[in-house]
Amino acid sequence: MADFERWKAQRLSRADGSRKGSVDEPIEGLVRLLNGREGFCTTSSCSGRVVVLEQPPQPRPPPRGQATTGFEVQKQNCTWLMVTHQICTIEDVLTALQKAKEDAVFKFEPFVLHVQCRELQDAQLLHTVAIEAGFRNSGITVGRKGKIIMAVRSTHCLEVPLSQKGKLMVSEEYVDFVVRVANQKMEENRRRIDRFYSSLQIALENKDQSSSLLFEEKEKSNAMDSYRRKGKAKGTANKDRCLSPGKHPGFESDNETQSNINVLQEA
Amino acid sequence: MADFERWKAQRLSRADGSRKGSVDEPIEGLVRLLNGREGFCTTSSCSGRVVVLEQPPQPRPPPRGQATTGFEVQKQNCTWLMVTHQICTIEDVLTALQKAKEDAVFKFEPFVLHVQCRELQDAQLLHTVAIEAGFRNSGITVGRKGKIIMAVRSTHCLEVPLSQKGKLMVSEEYVDFVVRVANQKMEENRRRIDRFYSSLQIALENKDQSSSLLFEEKEKSNAMDSYRRKGKAKGTANKDRCLSPGKHPGFESDNETQSNINVLQEA
Repeated sequence: MADFERWKAQRLSRADGSRKGSVDEPIEGLVRLLNGREGFCTTSSCSGRVVVLEQPPQPRPPPRGQATTGFEVQKQNCTWLMVTHQICTIEDVLTALQKAKEDAVFKFEPFVLHVQCRELQDAQLLHTVAIEAGFRNSGITVGRKGKIIMAVRSTHCLEVPLSQKGKLMVSEEYVDFVVRVANQKMEENRRRIDRFYSSLQIALENKDQSSSLLFEEKEKSNAMDSYRRKGKAKGTANKDRCLSPGKHPGFESDNETQSNINVLQEA
Repeated sequence: MADFERWKAQRLSRADGSRKGSVDEPIEGLVRLLNGREGFCTTSSCSGRVVVLEQPPQPRPPPRGQATTGFEVQKQNCTWLMVTHQICTIEDVLTALQKAKEDAVFKFEPFVLHVQCRELQDAQLLHTVAIEAGFRNSGITVGRKGKIIMAVRSTHCLEVPLSQKGKLMVSEEYVDFVVRVANQKMEENRRRIDRFYSSLQIALENKDQSSSLLFEEKEKSNAMDSYRRKGKAKGTANKDRCLSPGKHPGFESDNETQSNINVLQEA
């Protein structure tokens, strides 16, 4: 626990390592919410973007079955001709395409967020909220040394090749068409982010309330045990003074917490 | 453990629930490999496909900030005008587009695989192999009741709107262009599947060898303990006859296994 907090403090004190140098405005609140909680630390994020990328000519791929040493990443040195986290205009896109000398691709990429979590149950909470908000490609990574990362991801993308060797392959009317499609996807992406943020706030509040009730019940239970021990030590039976536990609204949450912790022990 | 095996036997005896009714040929070997192992059971798969989808007209989206009850899935009743798990031809795509009366989209979707795993360390092994093979959106889900799913996923996609209200928005030359781009992606997809399959076989063989060595070491260790107990009981000291444990090639793997199991106990 202490290790995670130390690592987190160090991490958050570092300068933002992204190209832009700051968190995207549409998700500032969300990132602040997560980093303000003990169990989470964001490691990378993007609110969603529309880009025009220039790709260098494709190298000739190896024939199938050819022996490979390790993973051969066809790492391309792409040039960003245009990038925006807002709604884009046809003028911006056409201006960007005019700069291309190689193949150019128009892309919409949705919201993505990586969060390192202190415990698996923290990752599970975040995962449930992400899936329910529409980020259906979200998933957890558990590293060999116990590092737990929750990645919020979506399937909601667009990838349209528009130029080949600098020559526009489509009409401006078509460019206008795909720009409108991308903007619709960006709006849907924003709605999903809003949903995710609201649901996360509610889920965390519920978790706090459950923990708080659980704590109160434990305190009561400890007090009762202590009272009973004193009663036995003095040899008195004080049935009339026994406190009735009453109902435990937090009990169901206790079971839920236990089932999360017991994930590995279950068959 | 027994629960997982029982559930798996039931699951594998059921008829294939996919639209096609069978596992895609390019991944038959891979699926068979996984289902032949105790720790895994595949639940859904697709070797990758090129599709032409007809989408109904988009409903008007709700304004931002409007209260939503739960997750509003804009579930569209898409019609598949064309689907292939192989290389596609321009003729197939043009034929499909001619049938469209609404908006039509041309898509490449890469290999996807969902595997339910018996233990978290099984999911971690699969996850590491998937990432190294190029399936960089892979992730683990751990459900509330302990269900562990590893999803093999890729970012490698294409989504190109081609028709609006049945009218082709691009030239046939452009359709030919995107068909070639999709086919290149399909070939790269196949190379990644091959890499994944080979790496998985090696990883599982290594795991078996480690387990086997571990078992042998434990047997030796038990035999030594038993010998020593008998020695003490008889009051004899037989230092010359003590067996030297020698080196343990499996020891490193033992630690790795332990660190995987201890994921939740670590701070």
